[in-house]
Amino acid sequence: DMLALNGDCPDHLYSTIFTLNDKPGILLEALKPFASLSISMSHIESRLGRDHAGYDFYVEFICETEELLSQLTKKLEDIATSVSLMTEGGRGNKVPWFPRSIRDLDKFSNRVLSMGAELSSDHPGFTDSVYRARRAQFADIAINYKHGEPIPRVEYTDSEINTWNEIFTKLSTLFPTHACKEFNRNFPLLVDNCGYRVGNIPQLADVSNFLKECSGFTLRPVAGLLSSRDFLAGLAFRVFHSTQYIRHYSKPMYTPEPDVCHELIGHAPLFADQKFAEFSQEIGLASLGVSDEYVKRLAAMYWFTIEFGLCKQDGELRAYGAGLLSSFGELQYCLTDKPEILPLEPEVTGNKEYPITEFQPTYFVAEDFESAKKKVRKYAESIPRSFTSRYNPYTQCIEILSRKDQIVDLSLSIQNDMSILQEALSKLHN
Amino acid sequence: DMLALNGDCPDHLYSTIFTLNDKPGILLEALKPFASLSISMSHIESRLGRDHAGYDFYVEFICETEELLSQLTKKLEDIATSVSLMTEGGRGNKVPWFPRSIRDLDKFSNRVLSMGAELSSDHPGFTDSVYRARRAQFADIAINYKHGEPIPRVEYTDSEINTWNEIFTKLSTLFPTHACKEFNRNFPLLVDNCGYRVGNIPQLADVSNFLKECSGFTLRPVAGLLSSRDFLAGLAFRVFHSTQYIRHYSKPMYTPEPDVCHELIGHAPLFADQKFAEFSQEIGLASLGVSDEYVKRLAAMYWFTIEFGLCKQDGELRAYGAGLLSSFGELQYCLTDKPEILPLEPEVTGNKEYPITEFQPTYFVAEDFESAKKKVRKYAESIPRSFTSRYNPYTQCIEILSRKDQIVDLSLSIQNDMSILQEALSKLHN
Amino acid sequence: DMLALNGDCPDHLYSTIFTLNDKPGILLEALKPFASLSISMSHIESRLGRDHAGYDFYVEFICETEELLSQLTKKLEDIATSVSLMTEGGRGNKVPWFPRSIRDLDKFSNRVLSMGAELSSDHPGFTDSVYRARRAQFADIAINYKHGEPIPRVEYTDSEINTWNEIFTKLSTLFPTHACKEFNRNFPLLVDNCGYRVGNIPQLADVSNFLKECSGFTLRPVAGLLSSRDFLAGLAFRVFHSTQYIRHYSKPMYTPEPDVCHELIGHAPLFADQKFAEFSQEIGLASLGVSDEYVKRLAAMYWFTIEFGLCKQDGELRAYGAGLLSSFGELQYCLTDKPEILPLEPEVTGNKEYPITEFQPTYFVAEDFESAKKKVRKYAESIPRSFTSRYNPYTQCIEILSRKDQIVDLSLSIQNDMSILQEALSKLHN
Amino acid sequence: DMLALNGDCPDHLYSTIFTLNDKPGILLEALKPFASLSISMSHIESRLGRDHAGYDFYVEFICETEELLSQLTKKLEDIATSVSLMTEGGRGNKVPWFPRSIRDLDKFSNRVLSMGAELSSDHPGFTDSVYRARRAQFADIAINYKHGEPIPRVEYTDSEINTWNEIFTKLSTLFPTHACKEFNRNFPLLVDNCGYRVGNIPQLADVSNFLKECSGFTLRPVAGLLSSRDFLAGLAFRVFHSTQYIRHYSKPMYTPEPDVCHELIGHAPLFADQKFAEFSQEIGLASLGVSDEYVKRLAAMYWFTIEFGLCKQDGELRAYGAGLLSSFGELQYCLTDKPEILPLEPEVTGNKEYPITEFQPTYFVAEDFESAKKKVRKYAESIPRSFTSRYNPYTQCIEILSRKDQIVDLSLSIQNDMSILQEALSKLHN
Repeated sequence: DMLALNGDCPDHLYSTIFTLNDKPGILLEALKPFASLSISMSHIESRLGRDHAGYDFYVEFICETEELLSQLTKKLEDIATSVSLMTEGGRGNKVPWFPRSIRDLDKFSNRVLSMGAELSSDHPGFTDSVYRARRAQFADIAINYKHGEPIPRVEYTDSEINTWNEIFTKLSTLFPTHACKEFNRNFPLLVDNCGYRVGNIPQLADVSNFLKECSGFTLRPVAGLLSSRDFLAGLAFRVFHSTQYIRHYSKPMYTPEPDVCHELIGHAPLFADQKFAEFSQEIGLASLGVSDEYVKRLAAMYWFTIEFGLCKQDGELRAYGAGLLSSFGELQYCLTDKPEILPLEPEVTGNKEYPITEFQPTYFVAEDFESAKKKVRKYAESIPRSFTSRYNPYTQCIEILSRKDQIVDLSLSIQNDMSILQEALSKLHN
Repeated sequence: DMLALNGDCPDHLYSTIFTLNDKPGILLEALKPFASLSISMSHIESRLGRDHAGYDFYVEFICETEELLSQLTKKLEDIATSVSLMTEGGRGNKVPWFPRSIRDLDKFSNRVLSMGAELSSDHPGFTDSVYRARRAQFADIAINYKHGEPIPRVEYTDSEINTWNEIFTKLSTLFPTHACKEFNRNFPLLVDNCGYRVGNIPQLADVSNFLKECSGFTLRPVAGLLSSRDFLAGLAFRVFHSTQYIRHYSKPMYTPEPDVCHELIGHAPLFADQKFAEFSQEIGLASLGVSDEYVKRLAAMYWFTIEFGLCKQDGELRAYGAGLLSSFGELQYCLTDKPEILPLEPEVTGNKEYPITEFQPTYFVAEDFESAKKKVRKYAESIPRSFTSRYNPYTQCIEILSRKDQIVDLSLSIQNDMSILQEALSKLHN
Repeated sequence: DMLALNGDCPDHLYSTIFTLNDKPGILLEALKPFASLSISMSHIESRLGRDHAGYDFYVEFICETEELLSQLTKKLEDIATSVSLMTEGGRGNKVPWFPRSIRDLDKFSNRVLSMGAELSSDHPGFTDSVYRARRAQFADIAINYKHGEPIPRVEYTDSEINTWNEIFTKLSTLFPTHACKEFNRNFPLLVDNCGYRVGNIPQLADVSNFLKECSGFTLRPVAGLLSSRDFLAGLAFRVFHSTQYIRHYSKPMYTPEPDVCHELIGHAPLFADQKFAEFSQEIGLASLGVSDEYVKRLAAMYWFTIEFGLCKQDGELRAYGAGLLSSFGELQYCLTDKPEILPLEPEVTGNKEYPITEFQPTYFVAEDFESAKKKVRKYAESIPRSFTSRYNPYTQCIEILSRKDQIVDLSLSIQNDMSILQEALSKLHN
Repeated sequence: DMLALNGDCPDHLYSTIFTLNDKPGILLEALKPFASLSISMSHIESRLGRDHAGYDFYVEFICETEELLSQLTKKLEDIATSVSLMTEGGRGNKVPWFPRSIRDLDKFSNRVLSMGAELSSDHPGFTDSVYRARRAQFADIAINYKHGEPIPRVEYTDSEINTWNEIFTKLSTLFPTHACKEFNRNFPLLVDNCGYRVGNIPQLADVSNFLKECSGFTLRPVAGLLSSRDFLAGLAFRVFHSTQYIRHYSKPMYTPEPDVCHELIGHAPLFADQKFAEFSQEIGLASLGVSDEYVKRLAAMYWFTIEFGLCKQDGELRAYGAGLLSSFGELQYCLTDKPEILPLEPEVTGNKEYPITEFQPTYFVAEDFESAKKKVRKYAESIPRSFTSRYNPYTQCIEILSRKDQIVDLSLSIQNDMSILQEALSKLHN
């Protein structure tokens, strides 16, 4: 993962969805307002209007002044039956932009907050030009990656593999006694299916394909630090932005930033679990289009669960957070009686401050992932947001349920599920 | 599409799913029974056991004799907590094999019933060696295609494009008055987004990506005729097996087999519709693991709906079947008073015989796709089958609901959908 | 039952529901428009406004002229936030009046179409003054009966008991081979619990209490023939209007009208079945507030099912209609090959004409009561009606779902049921 | 209400449900085991077996020794396909008896823990023989009351009415500022519909009928203190056991026990609210058949909500507990900053001790009744209990969901509700 806790986005980028009634030459008509104002469009798409009576156009464009923007809006309103305007950061009373389709995640690549290749002066690899060149290669892969392509495979060097070996070996000794049962059930599967072993750094591509078949999660290479908003939005699509490089060989048990060991050992085994996948996606869905304040709270929720979460199983505390499961020291520390232990409670957890460079003073304990998901869902309902969204796993798009017939469709789908439930129940042996 | 109405499969191919309890070295143990009997495995996978208390192993293997098979079964039963055996065609009391994961569709490629490149003597291109070489190229693409890869793009020749031009132009004149409204709504989108126009044969890859975002359907290149069982199984995954070649230039308004014009003009616009996609998938799901007799009936359902279906809209008959929408003659004929018109009724439709080389004497009329889907679903429940299956669109796998906790999971998912429905309803403007 | 197929109602009776905002002295304010126009009110009720922001007033009144009516409406609209006007027969574009609470059924008593005591000249008891006096006694009980009271017990004479004995004995011989299994399961329970036997005519009160505990149905004494609209409305509340007198002793195997033998032997055993009760109620609910034309069709549905229905069980036809089960001759005839047998199909059944004084030439066959209920429900959805109603079995009232929050409440109740389902499933032994 | 916090029941009373296969003379066969052991039966009922393949018999009987009991059980097991034994208090591993039908509440009347007429020496009316005679009259009404009968109307004396007047007048001044909004909405309706006013003590019968139509709750006269188990069981049927007498005239603002002022002013307005009714019933349902320990916790839940609950509305604390709403002193005290205020949390609330003779030191605050109901429901699921129960409001019986087909029936009912929801949604104006 590559999650920055705040960020700033270019504020002259906009997107708009507007609906035109059906008539010949409709595409041309849609383009006119932009052309006549010399506004440059970076992307245009047409789709069947959700009200079944026209077409929706989705356009991304750059607009330097507020005046130009209001002229455009006026022109669009003249020809369209409805116009929505979105912008990065949600200035004014606009809903902050968020990805509607999994393809939209391609837009994140070129707005990482700090490039993975730009190391700070206290980074163990800061003065190692070979390491820095290597990092640049990885950044390149990520920047050029597009949704739907296979993740490029990387040949890791012997030195890199040695680093992996040391981490993999040491952590493996702790898992039976420190990791949650979901982790321990999935870890051997990654060994069998994805090449987790001493002597081999698993390929993101293989792990991503494996996760896809277990829970629908996929990995996506990321070039540097994403804003919290962008990073969480990925989770709404069951997409996890993952680094591919490995930490500097000089300090195998330390890294100031996530690396492939953290992703593959800490995160991947949990993302293979369906309930955990649902829980993670729920945090992502809760974040779409909300204010910066709530993005911050959901990022804290993410931090205290997916990164540093504990759970209680058979009466004992166990770790399920990736930050713990990939840290030999903190994985031991977190189950001692030194840290404060609180129940997971979105209202509390989302407002808790946390250090990012030392062991956590406080951990939150989930009952199980199902109940954690329900808590996030209930919390999400309390976040001020003018719309209800739903992920369509077939189209990999976010649907906005703003009309009666969409709600009726949802209820038809529920009824269909009920009939499957009935059939399964009837055939159940008992 | 490439749908053969019967076929025969190698009958020494088997697959088995068995569950082992968790202990060290479990993979090795799973392999022993096969090794000790010298049975050759073509594929092995391990997954988390769905009863959360062990691991499932999925093995495909070749077994020449029944005796060897029963020895193997005995050995597996000695070590496993449960063993299921599946085989092509479902001989004995075994459930006929069916794909469980979308990746399993890769297995269909090398068992097409007749290769697309082997033309019969009355084929317009039979004596045209250039055309036959071209067909071999297309067959090659399909045979080598694997799930997850982009569909290779093809550069069509001027002659091929001319053929397309003639068909595209003539059919386009009929659609406003003969095609159903779903078709007419989606057709302009294919023009805007996928290059449907005079002078260009659209690429399968572009159409597939577009459909994916509209309804979750994807196209998959196919080398020749599939058995009904395999072809329908694809629909269960919202995958449509599609040809990529075009008919012979000598007879642009005739083809003895589906070609890219039939697929892209006849099928694609409907597969972009969500309700139609659900309906199509329902036929596919109904076919998984059922007897040959019922596969035949569902193939007839497919024929009379997706290929030759009519519907009533605003009091008028309209065509939605691809076989009609891609035939200049039959599209006109089907709305005259010559053919017999019956209401769609699975019990009747599934038992109706049909000619494949002339205009249909009978058409069936659907009220709408939602009600057609419900009819298929009700019919499916009446088909003898020992299990209930459900498609998981996240993992793109078929889940078998055979245990209480799976049904509980389904009911949790229904409850989650109910809470989305409530939220959407609360925010509905009225 | 006492079901007349048409009728006419006094047309100067109206009822209105209007909503006033909360303030002191609100009841007085509600009464003013009536007082100022000297319109006489026959009934007034106040209830909590369903929009949680005021009070609903329900007033029944008599209004002789249309002009007065429109003056009243205007005055009400001046003070109320919403006004609905209902009237018998639904003249103009008004929704025909229907009972909203089970207590409203009390209003039917004094508008029977022909009194049970007024016999026609071809009635076997027409010249028997003792019988006519007896009938008047029974009519009296019914006219004075109010919801919530115990049904008065009747001491039947020896002659009456003899009539019962003959009918009870003869019919009992046919049931094992001619009645449906639901009938044959419940009949012995009526023997054990309600005094069904030679020598005793069971009391309506006992049978009603027994049915209440089996399925929630109750009997209600009726003085004469009800209009179809009123009679079907009773079923919406799981109330069956039942005669209490017995046919004339001179012709024990014949009666030109329903009597207590028909009700108790023909109807009661089926009303003890939960699925049959649901099916019957569904017909009643479908009838509320619809046009006379649709009331007629639903009355035909009632006729061909609850009175003369057949079903197929274990491959054999069996009777479940009360008209059959209480007729020694027709019960035998209906299972021969003389009558026409058609599948139950609301569109067809509701439009079928039928004789009322001879054996039916046509019977309709239901698959089972669950599927029959679903058909009625689907049919009901196709009947033009501006509102959706739902029976609340706690309050025994019909709720009109006209607002978002009511639909949200329904969805909360569905979710609650889902959690019960989950709990039950989790505890299921298997 | 009349709720004792513990109690002891005669322990030689048993009830059993057993199922016999269908054959002639089945009732006689069911009686034999009891006759042959000379065990006296106090009640017997037969019902259709829920497995649709036989009959259930419910028998209550008295059995003095354990040995006799095991002999009986053996005999029953010889003839029955299933036998369940229940007993008061649930000794051994037997499930404590609980009412299955609303009629079973009649059994509570003769086992009140202390008679309402037996006053303790510090009771204000202890030395007033007229008052004691009056109390005996009220006790008589309750003891003889049977389900289904109208509650006898009482003519209150002038002295009694004066007491009511004083209480009614004083409390009414506080409600606008201290009572929750549900109370303030319903109170005027009780004035309009049930005779709440200075100069008249409302009749239980009128209030009960009114509540029935608002929320399905009814009142039932009670002769004295019920055990917690019995009292809470009443709530499962939406039945509230209510006193009918009034406190002693000498101390109108004080009573050591509930009286008609407490019931009618404190409880009735809330029971008219549907959400509150659901919440109250949920506590009742949670109590059926659980251990004494959990009955105690649920009684505490009852105490801290229905008797002494606070809620937060529009940012302010308000009272909804009847103990508060009927006490001039505590209603003022509870909204000051003197008492401790905690959020309603079943795990905490159920374990909290409380004084019964002085102002509460602690109050619990509910968000709203819907969320309070969900909390009770979730808590109920965590209570060890081998079965899942569901109230059927049609039959007014508790159903035990122990078989697959019952769960399928529930899912059919959910689907039916979904189709109502769809219809309502489709017709919603927006």
